[in-house]
Amino acid sequence: MALEIERKFLVRDAGDTVLPDWKRLAEDPEGTLYRQGYLSRDPDRTVRVRVAGDKARLTVKGRTTGCTRSEFEYPIPLEDARRMLDELVLPPVLEKRRYRVPFAGHVWEVDEFEGENRGLVVAEVELESEEEALLLPDWAGEEVTGDPRYYNATLSENPYARWKTEGDRASETPND
Amino acid sequence: MALEIERKFLVRDAGDTVLPDWKRLAEDPEGTLYRQGYLSRDPDRTVRVRVAGDKARLTVKGRTTGCTRSEFEYPIPLEDARRMLDELVLPPVLEKRRYRVPFAGHVWEVDEFEGENRGLVVAEVELESEEEALLLPDWAGEEVTGDPRYYNATLSENPYARWKTEGDRASETPND
Repeated sequence: MALEIERKFLVRDAGDTVLPDWKRLAEDPEGTLYRQGYLSRDPDRTVRVRVAGDKARLTVKGRTTGCTRSEFEYPIPLEDARRMLDELVLPPVLEKRRYRVPFAGHVWEVDEFEGENRGLVVAEVELESEEEALLLPDWAGEEVTGDPRYYNATLSENPYARWKTEGDRASETPND
Repeated sequence: MALEIERKFLVRDAGDTVLPDWKRLAEDPEGTLYRQGYLSRDPDRTVRVRVAGDKARLTVKGRTTGCTRSEFEYPIPLEDARRMLDELVLPPVLEKRRYRVPFAGHVWEVDEFEGENRGLVVAEVELESEEEALLLPDWAGEEVTGDPRYYNATLSENPYARWKTEGDRASETPND
């Protein structure tokens, strides 16, 4: 088991320019395609199946307290993960492109969502402790650590595109 | 992934004698203690954490059709499984003792439940195909293949001891 301590931010100017600042800094300008789905979206015991490039993992996460969450992660055969995504997970499968972006001694993970979450770009950074000081890049906007709306499990069930129509997105657009 | 084809029977005279016939035939007269819990009890995507003796596994199962069910099983560290059983699974943890019982060319798995499922003894046998002929031992009683009440995930949520008080057990006792 690992304890995952991370902070999460909306990304500014996410879709405003062809090559936003964060993407210029990315190790991998094409990013890696992630496809993931959930066998359980229960926040006390989330179970995720993820295909990242040609690697697959099954991940169990406990409830988040502060910015810490217990996490159990196991590599699984790619073929198993594909079958689970096609046949077993709660629909829909969530797709995003992940970029690794080094900044000030940390490697940020920037997720550019696709499908019904297109337009949403979120940056996460893993810390050694909850108290660790963190230098924020210009493109890091509002902090959304612990906000359940931005859990990937929630985005799979209640995608960003639907927030607009429900009127609860107006004041919270990441491009504010 | 594996396709799990199995038939399940209640065991007759389960608690009537000190050493019932099936236990006399068991490879391991003490059986093996199983402790298991569920991260998802959804019958379309059950996720089970199991400690069997000193081995631990994480298992994902799809819906049963006929007596076939898709199953994905992964060994995990014992310590991870114990933490998940203690901290993450939907309570309560289900306990049973499993015996391997060879009979007529198959190895039957006989589960003697403990805790709130005490008194329930169930025998399962894995088949090569749904049509395979099967010689039944005398101690195999009513067939309950596909009966959701006898899914271990259900027994964890609605244990056998409670059936009595709900009055839905009278005609279905395994010792009939």
